[in-house]
Amino acid sequence: MIVCTGSIALDTTRTPFKTVERILGGSASYFSFCASFFNKVGVIAVVGSDFPEKHWRELEDKGIDLSGVQRKKGKTFHFDSSYSFDLYARTANKTELGVYSGFKPVVPDHYKYAEYVYLGTTDPKTQLATLKEFPERKIAFMDTIGLYIKENRKDLLKVLGEVDGFVLNDEEARMLCDTPHLLKAGRKIREYGPRIVIIKKGEHGCLVFHEENIYAFPAFPLEDLVDPTGAGDSFAGGLIGQLSRERKINETALKRAVAYASVMGSFVCEDYGLDPLKRLDEKRIEERFNIYRNMTNW
Amino acid sequence: MIVCTGSIALDTTRTPFKTVERILGGSASYFSFCASFFNKVGVIAVVGSDFPEKHWRELEDKGIDLSGVQRKKGKTFHFDSSYSFDLYARTANKTELGVYSGFKPVVPDHYKYAEYVYLGTTDPKTQLATLKEFPERKIAFMDTIGLYIKENRKDLLKVLGEVDGFVLNDEEARMLCDTPHLLKAGRKIREYGPRIVIIKKGEHGCLVFHEENIYAFPAFPLEDLVDPTGAGDSFAGGLIGQLSRERKINETALKRAVAYASVMGSFVCEDYGLDPLKRLDEKRIEERFNIYRNMTNW
Repeated sequence: MIVCTGSIALDTTRTPFKTVERILGGSASYFSFCASFFNKVGVIAVVGSDFPEKHWRELEDKGIDLSGVQRKKGKTFHFDSSYSFDLYARTANKTELGVYSGFKPVVPDHYKYAEYVYLGTTDPKTQLATLKEFPERKIAFMDTIGLYIKENRKDLLKVLGEVDGFVLNDEEARMLCDTPHLLKAGRKIREYGPRIVIIKKGEHGCLVFHEENIYAFPAFPLEDLVDPTGAGDSFAGGLIGQLSRERKINETALKRAVAYASVMGSFVCEDYGLDPLKRLDEKRIEERFNIYRNMTNW
Repeated sequence: MIVCTGSIALDTTRTPFKTVERILGGSASYFSFCASFFNKVGVIAVVGSDFPEKHWRELEDKGIDLSGVQRKKGKTFHFDSSYSFDLYARTANKTELGVYSGFKPVVPDHYKYAEYVYLGTTDPKTQLATLKEFPERKIAFMDTIGLYIKENRKDLLKVLGEVDGFVLNDEEARMLCDTPHLLKAGRKIREYGPRIVIIKKGEHGCLVFHEENIYAFPAFPLEDLVDPTGAGDSFAGGLIGQLSRERKINETALKRAVAYASVMGSFVCEDYGLDPLKRLDEKRIEERFNIYRNMTNW
């Protein structure tokens, strides 16, 4: 079983082409939806009393275990943001934490034997406390955001000392290590603890630091980029999803997992919110995986 | 034999860290130096009476055939440019064409049986005329710049109709096809003629359009970027150099050649001008090729 923590949100996303309001979003939604194509997933999160039953069912119908999702009186985490014309830069218009503020994860008993753990972005203290609940874990990955790098560095480094893997984007890596050089940043982060560090570069792919090795993956080139929201968490969903299907986490397994991650990260950008994921099945994932394999191997 | 046309220049390059003055540069210098690690190369170019004998010998000592390089009374092509702090954007400070203005390539008889031809950036009319001098050619590649895309489009399309391959950067591809989408641009350029189109994205690698297929290659991640001048022509030198060693130009051969191209393009950025190439040997090229292979294959 894979367990993830993170947010379930109602997103308002404004692109130069269209605005979608209060659609299903949040790191745990994207991650769990993607990972559930690979394995059984349990979510730890919180929603408010305004959370539409429809969204709950969308996740549940995908076979995602929501017994770790608390329903609290109040408002669901709401994030309103706008994309620039090239769909690259995102500006936050409004962040209403609602019930997510002060969220204390409660881990259902049957989650506790999970071997694969993904700590989506929350404050590092909560990430660390949650991690301790999984004594049987084989692989734990984490994500974070600039806010915690800037304001909670000490706690962040503590979590980094306990996880196996860390996915972050290029900007965050530069910020965390105070260097413009991604190679130097990647190596430095490895010294903080995780034996796998993946620096994502959006449409330019990612760099993977695995023990003493470095691998470079291009992104799957997209015909039409519509909404990049959730790309990072979908990437992580494909990554942990595939790792959970591998017998042994060696170089070959990790590279294959990064390939699935790149594929899942590409699908999600082809339409708004989780819509492109809802249209997905194993066959289309395998098809794109094979195209990507031929595109990148030589 | 590989024959290339292009410029031999005296470059003044200003980076935020250092200024180097009147060093050996120009597309033909970078291309021929890199390609000569792979095969015999003949150059078609022109230098002025101020061209230092030292530079001539540097090329000749590398085994490059300079019998197609005219020595004319006047000044050698001089290019003075400055790089931005991130070494990405380059501003031209001064372009003195000198003897390069009105340059009429003269092809030595023993060049005419060349099977591999690289048309470095010159005006498209000259490129087309030069191309016709190689009836035995198996593969001809070309390069261009924004100036000719804007001001000489009609002639440029004529050359494109005659060559097998085209290497250009992302900005030029967008300009030529009037679209921000590189996938659309690459496909459109293929329709103009060349069966191989390579769109370079600097530190982000390249996209290769080969018949109906697309391949994506990351750049070799550099520890220290010092001077990106010549990266594109060095890339082309590795590309055509390796293609000339392949028996058949199929998918495997092309991908291997793009890998060598990426490797040569990375070396040249590690110091000013041709300096890093002068320190290079086959052994170091093979070493980096093998690292790159493991970095990108899975």
